[in-house]
Amino acid sequence: MDKPKDVANDDKPKSRGISRRGLFGVAGAGGIGLAVGALGVNAVNAATDPKPAGTIVDFYGDHQAGIVTEAQDRMHIAAFDVTASTRESLVSLLKDWTEAIAALTQGREIGEGATDGNYDAPPDDTGEALDLGASHLTVTVGFGRTLFEKDGKDRYGLAGKLPEALIDLPHFVGDALEEGRSGGDLIVQACADDPQVAVHAVRNLARIAFGRASVRWSQIGFGRTSSTSTTQATPRNLFGFKDGTANLKQENADLVNQHVWVSDASGPEAWMNGGTYMVARRIRMHIEIWDRTSMREQEGLIGRTKKEGAPLSGGGEFTEPDFGMQGREGPLIAVDSHVSIAHPNHNNGVQMLRRGFNYTDGSDGLGKLDAGLFFIAFVVDARTHYVPMQSAMARNDVLSLEYLRHTGSGLFAVPPGVKPGGYLGQTLFES
Amino acid sequence: MDKPKDVANDDKPKSRGISRRGLFGVAGAGGIGLAVGALGVNAVNAATDPKPAGTIVDFYGDHQAGIVTEAQDRMHIAAFDVTASTRESLVSLLKDWTEAIAALTQGREIGEGATDGNYDAPPDDTGEALDLGASHLTVTVGFGRTLFEKDGKDRYGLAGKLPEALIDLPHFVGDALEEGRSGGDLIVQACADDPQVAVHAVRNLARIAFGRASVRWSQIGFGRTSSTSTTQATPRNLFGFKDGTANLKQENADLVNQHVWVSDASGPEAWMNGGTYMVARRIRMHIEIWDRTSMREQEGLIGRTKKEGAPLSGGGEFTEPDFGMQGREGPLIAVDSHVSIAHPNHNNGVQMLRRGFNYTDGSDGLGKLDAGLFFIAFVVDARTHYVPMQSAMARNDVLSLEYLRHTGSGLFAVPPGVKPGGYLGQTLFES
Repeated sequence: MDKPKDVANDDKPKSRGISRRGLFGVAGAGGIGLAVGALGVNAVNAATDPKPAGTIVDFYGDHQAGIVTEAQDRMHIAAFDVTASTRESLVSLLKDWTEAIAALTQGREIGEGATDGNYDAPPDDTGEALDLGASHLTVTVGFGRTLFEKDGKDRYGLAGKLPEALIDLPHFVGDALEEGRSGGDLIVQACADDPQVAVHAVRNLARIAFGRASVRWSQIGFGRTSSTSTTQATPRNLFGFKDGTANLKQENADLVNQHVWVSDASGPEAWMNGGTYMVARRIRMHIEIWDRTSMREQEGLIGRTKKEGAPLSGGGEFTEPDFGMQGREGPLIAVDSHVSIAHPNHNNGVQMLRRGFNYTDGSDGLGKLDAGLFFIAFVVDARTHYVPMQSAMARNDVLSLEYLRHTGSGLFAVPPGVKPGGYLGQTLFES
Repeated sequence: MDKPKDVANDDKPKSRGISRRGLFGVAGAGGIGLAVGALGVNAVNAATDPKPAGTIVDFYGDHQAGIVTEAQDRMHIAAFDVTASTRESLVSLLKDWTEAIAALTQGREIGEGATDGNYDAPPDDTGEALDLGASHLTVTVGFGRTLFEKDGKDRYGLAGKLPEALIDLPHFVGDALEEGRSGGDLIVQACADDPQVAVHAVRNLARIAFGRASVRWSQIGFGRTSSTSTTQATPRNLFGFKDGTANLKQENADLVNQHVWVSDASGPEAWMNGGTYMVARRIRMHIEIWDRTSMREQEGLIGRTKKEGAPLSGGGEFTEPDFGMQGREGPLIAVDSHVSIAHPNHNNGVQMLRRGFNYTDGSDGLGKLDAGLFFIAFVVDARTHYVPMQSAMARNDVLSLEYLRHTGSGLFAVPPGVKPGGYLGQTLFES
């Protein structure tokens, strides 16, 4: 792969291409007089010191990080509208993002850092994550359908490469989608142990995008609701139940290869090999109503016990549910329970790799918290791996019908990983 | 102090007064048939096991916790409108909250817990913080002016005890306050190492308040912007600068006693002795504009270096600023810099104990992140310790004028701490 070509054309050597002068130009001069001599104490540039390796997730690889990576506890995700007027400008954005993400995920600062001793220009890095380390940061980037075609227009010469799987998700029963929480040309999912590290990443990528893309929506998630590794304990969602017990785990490479990674795309879609599709759904939970529901009904709706997360047919958390086991009044696990409707056996064997987060966004103005689940799943094809299951849930799952409302939605094609010298989306633009 | 009297009148022994039956009644019966026999595996009640003591902050004391307590990294704060129709109902709410907070801050569950084996009623605890421990949780409760008097009405027989210091904050230059983010009869500040623990606390207190108080606004803060102990490193705000270097620290008991705790109230206000006042301000930061400002201007506006947080007059982070030191173009620290305008020397010697948090709430709909500082300060009297400084800042501080916009506001009387057997606000209601 080629080295990114749009490194800043600057007059002094530097280790990375993004430069305050190249990207941001010279900012307005400050109105406050300061003697330059007094500032020398701060001129040492520590931006190149990587932080302890123990918290670094490798950015480079066949697949993007932040998918099968052990799910971090905090997330900030943002969708962008691309405003770039040319394909070249869009590619330059992706190259700049690649370089920035490679630095941030190693605990380095953007460009020459937040405190490089040049006082005449804005710092390359905004600085609020100084001292916080890499914090297992991953940044995962995807492309929305509107990047390929919008209002019938082939904006960036990509229409011919629009994957068939990058559909407009259909309307599901009960959807209450808000335009301002849905869609987007680009998606950036930043996950980390420390939320400030994730927010810092999104904020700096938004800054780098200035003039080429702007924030469409963003969401902060305070607690993960899925595990993606057998080494992780199963977390709880805002219904108080363990979530994602049956989630795909990174250790099961065969299933991940089957259900997550695109591997047999060909022709104009070949660029997606090694990639996947991200389904993002903001799901408001009616927690106040849930909280007035009896334990029997709660467990019945989920199909698992609250404490252990064991299927109601018996055993422990990781025991396979026995949908045939009968109680006095019918199956122990109701056919319209969440675990039953979502189970692979009832969905043509498909599985998802979920990576969602609990959120709370203030109040709803009606005396209640606005809280719920920001659902994220990575699947090989949403047409087989999301739409049928969500259709069934929206129609039949009592949990979905009475306690959930989908308020935001997006589907994004997540291109394969990046090799050193390459950039995010290179297979799309150069194939 | 008396033992709370409104313990649930239930037919079986229990260790705590809040009961699913007492508080929530019997919920609607589930529509899903389940054989009771299959559920026995989950009937063990582990709700009474306290979590490891290392992460517990004592709830009881002369002062409420969550003020001088070492600032935790995450926060969820919510204001409530009281809907209780009687004073007795309001008192019962405060007693129930006291009992719940005492349990939660020890890492215990509310009442009989989330999984107590009673399937006919909703669980007492919503369960999403099971296994997360106490996580240094503190919950701090305060009273808004409207609790004492609203629209000229003495709602709960408290008007005679309205402290003079519990003013309506004046309008400051540049304020853009939103009704839905301001005010409130009650405030609940939950801080913890794990945000899910803080959210769980607020959510369960909101649940307990059902029928007596409803959520007016809430805010999640992802990263602390102040230290309250000399043992803590100074964190950074979203301008990328260290914030709160000169903050009051718990180790300086004399200054804390002088500037934070009410100690000389008398007559109808005597109930506030041992208490303090919380100023809460949601401050949107125009981070995109800031990010295009040169390093010289950034440091000039703050009056400190970005990297070390040292005053521009020289030295290290904790060196006292020398406002008289001249550079070639005037004082090294500009008179209208943030550090100068906020310094005690320029504010009649007053100091604040700040305890704010960075926030980001999606986007502003205009292509930018909605992000900033949720400012919280505890002061002995906002009339002397907040209003003059904020007036000066709003008028003269270039930082405030160009980069900040206050969108939410509240002032709350925070009553003294609770002794075992007592309840929050007891001195107010029983004096």
